[in-house]
Amino acid sequence: MSATLHYFNGRGKAEIVRLSMAAAKVEFSQVDITEKHQFEALKTEGKLVFGQLPLVEYEGNNLVQSCSTARYFAAKGDLLGSNEQEKLNIDILFEGTRDFNSAFIPYGFAGFKEVLDNAKQTVIPKYLPVFNSILSKNGSNGHLVGSKLSLADLGLLEVSLTIEELLGEDELKPYPEVQNFLKVMKSNEAIANYLRSDLRKKKNDERYVAEVQRVLN
Amino acid sequence: MSATLHYFNGRGKAEIVRLSMAAAKVEFSQVDITEKHQFEALKTEGKLVFGQLPLVEYEGNNLVQSCSTARYFAAKGDLLGSNEQEKLNIDILFEGTRDFNSAFIPYGFAGFKEVLDNAKQTVIPKYLPVFNSILSKNGSNGHLVGSKLSLADLGLLEVSLTIEELLGEDELKPYPEVQNFLKVMKSNEAIANYLRSDLRKKKNDERYVAEVQRVLN
Repeated sequence: MSATLHYFNGRGKAEIVRLSMAAAKVEFSQVDITEKHQFEALKTEGKLVFGQLPLVEYEGNNLVQSCSTARYFAAKGDLLGSNEQEKLNIDILFEGTRDFNSAFIPYGFAGFKEVLDNAKQTVIPKYLPVFNSILSKNGSNGHLVGSKLSLADLGLLEVSLTIEELLGEDELKPYPEVQNFLKVMKSNEAIANYLRSDLRKKKNDERYVAEVQRVLN
Repeated sequence: MSATLHYFNGRGKAEIVRLSMAAAKVEFSQVDITEKHQFEALKTEGKLVFGQLPLVEYEGNNLVQSCSTARYFAAKGDLLGSNEQEKLNIDILFEGTRDFNSAFIPYGFAGFKEVLDNAKQTVIPKYLPVFNSILSKNGSNGHLVGSKLSLADLGLLEVSLTIEELLGEDELKPYPEVQNFLKVMKSNEAIANYLRSDLRKKKNDERYVAEVQRVLN
């Protein structure tokens, strides 16, 4: 059965959900929330437990909270690890990617250059060396844990793609393991298909920021 | 085997980990990190993947990222749900309690009154009616999902206890289901034992805030 994702017409907090559905090979369509009345309607229908997007309608469930939704689809796609130790490591590293990624979520909403300058001073020097080292210790196979794709990989993929696009690929040069990881990820068929599809939204721009603010305020 | 929690001498991000260990009946001791050299030693020993606390040493693992650690112990205590639907609902509601709770984490660090005033205007009117309603729909049995204790309950317990202590029990009066929930939680033997033990830290005060800042800076 296919899923329906309701979110603004951008990446934001829905991107990890999209990546997890794509990697788990769950087909989905998108409803872009571009007008306030659409958002209000979802709330009135009781589909948003905490009044927030993203929402995924799937098999009668109203899935909210992006990390829970990502874990739900990751479980379906067997992306949470094969044993207790892998499960633990994947959960910890995924949470780390969320902290890392959170610095980029306000891109455009708290300035464009400001957000990137802040990221360059804080999260990039903090997290990239750690993930580079973990990738190396895991055997330079392009995965953070074990020898196959996991939710932790999807988390790092999201933020690596963001860095590559917003700051340029040179930003990743000091981290060859992360560069190799990104190459491996991009060669994954399900991920490659998603990234070149219309489902992949564009980076935040002024128009998008204004649209989100109009829906929310 | 018993666990060792390393954290500052307060509740902070470790509290949900303590609650999950207590509820899962995993014995633990605590090392209070009150001096910079203790924190630096843990980093040098490679025990903090992302250079952050809390850390739990348990069965040879260095558990970090508080939500992952809480889930790990919740799994051991069978607190993550009995079937796929329960697991999903518990994960979503737990994430909601984390968003709710995050407004109280800066208590003392971003002012005392300021943090509470902000919570009264934002998260309390947003989340308490939702959890009150979920508790009612679940049969007013003092649990958010199903008929037994879950990680979602522990998440709501943490924030309800905080509200009761910092804002007074009257703050919960408009939410009788939450009041009943809190009563049920406090009558849980494992939780009651923890709350009256020395393991339960005190609320943030100026001394604690200064101590944490000294360790971190």
